[in-house]
Amino acid sequence: MTCCATVTGGALETDQAEQIARVFKALGDPTRVRLLSLIAASDTGELCICDLTDPVGLAQPTVSHHMKQLVDAGLATREQRGKWAYFRVIDGALEGAARSLLPR
Amino acid sequence: MTCCATVTGGALETDQAEQIARVFKALGDPTRVRLLSLIAASDTGELCICDLTDPVGLAQPTVSHHMKQLVDAGLATREQRGKWAYFRVIDGALEGAARSLLPR
Repeated sequence: MTCCATVTGGALETDQAEQIARVFKALGDPTRVRLLSLIAASDTGELCICDLTDPVGLAQPTVSHHMKQLVDAGLATREQRGKWAYFRVIDGALEGAARSLLPR
Repeated sequence: MTCCATVTGGALETDQAEQIARVFKALGDPTRVRLLSLIAASDTGELCICDLTDPVGLAQPTVSHHMKQLVDAGLATREQRGKWAYFRVIDGALEGAARSLLPR
């Protein structure tokens, strides 16, 4: 996300708008919003893919696909440990997205 | 948008996640982000559909469709005046979306 580009800070160029929209596209799905909230709410700040399937009621490949979109958008990290992938919300990533919607 | 539901404020229920994701889905497209920024940057705070087509390089029906999605998501208003529709960004709507991403 560009450091200073905001939706209300002047007419955006195409590339700035693409950067901003990329993160919101990842956030524009209720399952992905719930997955982020579950991870953020965990005691350790991380959750195993094996702990995410039950709460959202979806099969592991579907949850993995959603998590890949969140990782690709720069909102979460993925770490493989043995059999399982573990996910964390990246510090400051949601705040960065929020800033692009706020007055400068 | 629910007044208090935030992505990092605890595990979200399905309906809360749907409300949050709905706004971000509208923001998850670079053309719609540019349209909002153009309207917000105008001197009067509003722009005619006739002033939006050129800057984004799209035909009027396409721009109208994008603007409908922004209006339906509660981010913009549409007012028909004679031949043309005029759009405004709703005060506080982007701030409300930003709040759902920030710590409480």
